[in-house]
Amino acid sequence: MAGERPQLRIGLIGTGFMGKTHVFGFAAAQRVFDLPYELVRHTVADRTEDLAAQAAQALGFARASGDWRRLVEDPEIDVIDITAPNAFHKEMALAAIAAGKHVYCEKPLAPLAADARQMAEAAEAAGVRTQVGFNYLCNPLLALAREMIREGELGEIRSYRGIHAEDYMADAESPFTFRHDPVGGGALADLGSHALATAEFLLGSVEQVLGDSVTVIASRPDSGGGRRTVEVDDIGRAFLRFANGASGSIEASWVATGRKMQHDFEVYGTKGALVFSQERFNELHFYNTSDPGGRRGFRRIEAGPDHDPYGLFCVAPGHQLGFNDLKAIEVARFVDAIAGKRDEFFGFRAGQRIQEVVEAIQGSARERKWLRTG
Amino acid sequence: MAGERPQLRIGLIGTGFMGKTHVFGFAAAQRVFDLPYELVRHTVADRTEDLAAQAAQALGFARASGDWRRLVEDPEIDVIDITAPNAFHKEMALAAIAAGKHVYCEKPLAPLAADARQMAEAAEAAGVRTQVGFNYLCNPLLALAREMIREGELGEIRSYRGIHAEDYMADAESPFTFRHDPVGGGALADLGSHALATAEFLLGSVEQVLGDSVTVIASRPDSGGGRRTVEVDDIGRAFLRFANGASGSIEASWVATGRKMQHDFEVYGTKGALVFSQERFNELHFYNTSDPGGRRGFRRIEAGPDHDPYGLFCVAPGHQLGFNDLKAIEVARFVDAIAGKRDEFFGFRAGQRIQEVVEAIQGSARERKWLRTG
Amino acid sequence: MAGERPQLRIGLIGTGFMGKTHVFGFAAAQRVFDLPYELVRHTVADRTEDLAAQAAQALGFARASGDWRRLVEDPEIDVIDITAPNAFHKEMALAAIAAGKHVYCEKPLAPLAADARQMAEAAEAAGVRTQVGFNYLCNPLLALAREMIREGELGEIRSYRGIHAEDYMADAESPFTFRHDPVGGGALADLGSHALATAEFLLGSVEQVLGDSVTVIASRPDSGGGRRTVEVDDIGRAFLRFANGASGSIEASWVATGRKMQHDFEVYGTKGALVFSQERFNELHFYNTSDPGGRRGFRRIEAGPDHDPYGLFCVAPGHQLGFNDLKAIEVARFVDAIAGKRDEFFGFRAGQRIQEVVEAIQGSARERKWLRTG
Amino acid sequence: MAGERPQLRIGLIGTGFMGKTHVFGFAAAQRVFDLPYELVRHTVADRTEDLAAQAAQALGFARASGDWRRLVEDPEIDVIDITAPNAFHKEMALAAIAAGKHVYCEKPLAPLAADARQMAEAAEAAGVRTQVGFNYLCNPLLALAREMIREGELGEIRSYRGIHAEDYMADAESPFTFRHDPVGGGALADLGSHALATAEFLLGSVEQVLGDSVTVIASRPDSGGGRRTVEVDDIGRAFLRFANGASGSIEASWVATGRKMQHDFEVYGTKGALVFSQERFNELHFYNTSDPGGRRGFRRIEAGPDHDPYGLFCVAPGHQLGFNDLKAIEVARFVDAIAGKRDEFFGFRAGQRIQEVVEAIQGSARERKWLRTG
Repeated sequence: MAGERPQLRIGLIGTGFMGKTHVFGFAAAQRVFDLPYELVRHTVADRTEDLAAQAAQALGFARASGDWRRLVEDPEIDVIDITAPNAFHKEMALAAIAAGKHVYCEKPLAPLAADARQMAEAAEAAGVRTQVGFNYLCNPLLALAREMIREGELGEIRSYRGIHAEDYMADAESPFTFRHDPVGGGALADLGSHALATAEFLLGSVEQVLGDSVTVIASRPDSGGGRRTVEVDDIGRAFLRFANGASGSIEASWVATGRKMQHDFEVYGTKGALVFSQERFNELHFYNTSDPGGRRGFRRIEAGPDHDPYGLFCVAPGHQLGFNDLKAIEVARFVDAIAGKRDEFFGFRAGQRIQEVVEAIQGSARERKWLRTG
Repeated sequence: MAGERPQLRIGLIGTGFMGKTHVFGFAAAQRVFDLPYELVRHTVADRTEDLAAQAAQALGFARASGDWRRLVEDPEIDVIDITAPNAFHKEMALAAIAAGKHVYCEKPLAPLAADARQMAEAAEAAGVRTQVGFNYLCNPLLALAREMIREGELGEIRSYRGIHAEDYMADAESPFTFRHDPVGGGALADLGSHALATAEFLLGSVEQVLGDSVTVIASRPDSGGGRRTVEVDDIGRAFLRFANGASGSIEASWVATGRKMQHDFEVYGTKGALVFSQERFNELHFYNTSDPGGRRGFRRIEAGPDHDPYGLFCVAPGHQLGFNDLKAIEVARFVDAIAGKRDEFFGFRAGQRIQEVVEAIQGSARERKWLRTG
Repeated sequence: MAGERPQLRIGLIGTGFMGKTHVFGFAAAQRVFDLPYELVRHTVADRTEDLAAQAAQALGFARASGDWRRLVEDPEIDVIDITAPNAFHKEMALAAIAAGKHVYCEKPLAPLAADARQMAEAAEAAGVRTQVGFNYLCNPLLALAREMIREGELGEIRSYRGIHAEDYMADAESPFTFRHDPVGGGALADLGSHALATAEFLLGSVEQVLGDSVTVIASRPDSGGGRRTVEVDDIGRAFLRFANGASGSIEASWVATGRKMQHDFEVYGTKGALVFSQERFNELHFYNTSDPGGRRGFRRIEAGPDHDPYGLFCVAPGHQLGFNDLKAIEVARFVDAIAGKRDEFFGFRAGQRIQEVVEAIQGSARERKWLRTG
Repeated sequence: MAGERPQLRIGLIGTGFMGKTHVFGFAAAQRVFDLPYELVRHTVADRTEDLAAQAAQALGFARASGDWRRLVEDPEIDVIDITAPNAFHKEMALAAIAAGKHVYCEKPLAPLAADARQMAEAAEAAGVRTQVGFNYLCNPLLALAREMIREGELGEIRSYRGIHAEDYMADAESPFTFRHDPVGGGALADLGSHALATAEFLLGSVEQVLGDSVTVIASRPDSGGGRRTVEVDDIGRAFLRFANGASGSIEASWVATGRKMQHDFEVYGTKGALVFSQERFNELHFYNTSDPGGRRGFRRIEAGPDHDPYGLFCVAPGHQLGFNDLKAIEVARFVDAIAGKRDEFFGFRAGQRIQEVVEAIQGSARERKWLRTG
């Protein structure tokens, strides 16, 4: 029974928005899924002992620490969950892997692809399981889209268009942050990585890219009361060539006034097409050329129990999943991978791939020529 | 060839918005369709000789008259087209019928169903062809909807919901007009008649009704600088029982703030459903229960050459018809009926039916009980 | 701090879909909100000791019982949460109230309004807090809609249209269940109650109704292999008169092929309008007559941190809440009411009101005349 | 009055779909607009005398000719309207210009930009008026969009995304046509030219481009029963830099399965954004950052009399224009330019620009580097 399942003890590093979201995910996954482990919130780490102690209480962890290394060293902990700033991902992950822990890491895996590769290789060498937090991929309708593409329901795939646009950096007076750091920063790395992850999730590997990079807001206020020049992109674009022969494009923007979550894609094949918008992520639109004449059209498929694992959240269609539910699915995917019940859903290798494509696009935009990825 | 086709000479009574729209319709129908007749703009009548002469020049009629009876008496004229105010429809139509003319009359056919019935009976006795101007019915996608319903693509029809809501009377300071006349006025007669025409066009006869009638704006400015009490409905509603066994409802409102053309319907059958909005009248949404599991959804069918007679207007799908195109189709339907090539599309009998249902709903709302129609 | 907050010990009766959903709600509410109590899953009751024990383990309750009365009698339990079949709501709730417990009860409160009234009166006499599970009302955008209506952003409200349509009973071979029980069953009671709850939540009290009731599927398979005649409505409709002077209508259907969650409303006022669909419940469409000419239109407002308590779930707009999140909000509303931090959100009196309106509509449909509610 | 206005005598070359559409446009423009001229269908030319005679009768021209040069030489003709295949545009237009005629020419102006430039220069030297048939630009809502952009309602424009995707060449068995001609053919030239025309219409000149060109279907059936290799693009893409400082992208595809008229754009500025789809071309979606907090969203503006010249077609909003109405507006724009009442709407210079940008993109795709346009 449930009580007999082994424990999976989690050490969480970082207690900001994403840390909290992960804890939601653990709790919801535990309740919703029939997981092979009992998830135990073992220890949480933050920058100071006090902060960690507060977080432990707020988030339901048994212990707290002001030093993340204590978690890595703790033999009782099975999984290290990293939601600390991107700049620390590599060091933390490598230490955790070295200690034989499974590692769950927020996206982006690392500011540089070379670092991400090192992390992926270390994980593989150590035989631990990893997961990168591209939670939009956990949408049951994206699983459906992938299945339809793989099973040939769209025929041969010809083209792809992906977007991830928001407006949260549209204000020229919004301050310079780590997201504007010349190493690892920019809209493409931050948001375009989602668009690329979706593209590779659906169509497989992107082989060549031609990039475009635009800095719209030349400087932003820094913490010292002055302004700091921005070197990274506010808008990143790329043309793509997939290994499967399809061509496509992606665009990332964080200055798209009015857009809150335009994570959209369109896939066109010889037999059909799919259109999706994260703005209405409980819907997938499907065109089927084999529908009878005069009756063809894009069909609005609403998420429901036919689309696993929706039915675990809700027994009836139309009720809709929310953002936090996607995180719970992500957790469950990871736990299943740890238990050997399924392959890694989107592990460090996949995260490294995304980082490589991001860098290829950035390099291509700088060098103004097509580049191969990876 | 085209030049050898016989002439159909038209006498137009009334030169307002609808008169002009009809002339657009004649001209467009002549160009777009391979009509059995050459349409000739013969004579136009208005209230005075001067107005008529101006209209003749503006609208391309050969002759003009300040007396509509001259058109009725003119043996050269084949068709009398009535776009004068509703109050005159009966007198004009009966005179035209008596003179053996075919009659094209704007909706509503007459303020009172008894009058409409008299007109329909006269036309049948005289053997002339008639048409009432419910042009939304001429949408190729409504023809598709009717065909799908009749051919059983939706299975047995269970329920219907129709709406016609606009906001052009929403301002309490918009003046009292003939549309507020206690005889023949009101939102149900004006707009609800469209909703009922669509309902009967799609599902057949409405047999019983239970009405609701609301006057929202108690008085409106009259032309004398005072205010006049409004007795007619600003909102009319009804529950319906169709002869085919389905139940349904309609609603009419001219105080629906923000709505410009909410002429919508939803039809639910055992095997499928249709959802339509005149706000996007080049689309019909179709749900088919026989689509495979996990792939079902409302399908957005875009109007195209598969949907006759769209292809006469445009060789490719997606280009879209406009309101004036619907009027051209209406004209063509009428001309074909005159030539005996098809049944009357929506003749005086159909117009009478709508008027009867309107009155049944009004009576039902007054008497607060279910009534049979017709 | 969090740890010092008093406990609120919950006894759950019923462990089906709704029981599980409630437990999700407790857990999520505890994490997401800064609640005045620590929610403790104390005891769960099911029909047998075994079932209860299994549920306790699965749902995280400390104790289990095969007899719900044990929970009511347990002095350690503060709240009785009833998700058992409707027929038991009254007995359980009255017992819990008599024992001084706060009561959280799934909708509908009781099959008969008289029973609901008795429950509401008992709760008021005992001074306990109550909540009925109309969770769609917990949508932050419904709170926005209500605020906009109350603050006059739409001007004087003129009309309302509400729908709750699904297709889960559309198959004539779906079996006869308690939802078809002549006492308390039918689409109006099951789904129309949601439409009515939303209507009263937004516009206030419904005073008069004129009902329509249709049984589409005359008989359904019973458990004995035969068929049982259905007496309740598959489609219920009503015209409404609100105390605020507005008129409106609602429709409930569980045979609306293709519809999974058409819980929609439209509100029209003198200054603006709102249009909402539960099919896309993270959006609210707002028309504002004071927008400048040529720039007016229905505005798609996406849920975000501006719409309390969305921001507690997610720091950024556009991420979207799911169905289970609405349940968490419902729990938080109830806990706040218990703590005296706010009025009952939708207590037994409100639930009684809905039941009264449902019965008034049912009675009106039978008697074929307008009836006053309550 | 109307009868006194001077005649503008038209000579039409070409009687296919576009020729017919132009005649619709003349007729409709004459009726709908208060034009400074009376449009006279003088002579029509086709490949043979017989075909021309048939067309004259069908389309209402007084005379016919099997030789287009006769029209150019005819001193009675004021305007030459060219709807013949693209390959003939240059020769015909130059002859017409040399004869002092105004010239109306379907898009694309010429297969090569150099030819288009020669045509534009000739027209300017001769002082005649010209128009290229980019009729989507004649949408009243595109005029609104341009006005909003120019008047600063969106603030400073930052980015643009344009698409023109259809599926009419998606079938690998659809035959090789002139649209696949290596000179002037391809999806970018055919459909992308629309996307570019819209982009320049709204934001002004495109200065630099980086192109991408993909041939999806390697060969198509030729008329001889074999297959012919396709050298042109089925999908064309480009990154753009506008003279106003904005960046953007366009995509053209004629293999976008399911798409019939995805001529879409999105414009993002510092103060607002516009989103448009030709699939619903009577709507424009507008986001305004100065709307109050919690009330912001994309606003669906429906075309109406506020949006000139919609009101000439229809007195009320929501009725909607169709594709053929856009052509009538195009004709009226041209006639007004001939009369000196307004500047050329989209003359040969503008057409040349589009051709130059198309070629720059094609060249950029070949050379795999950024190129300046024009």
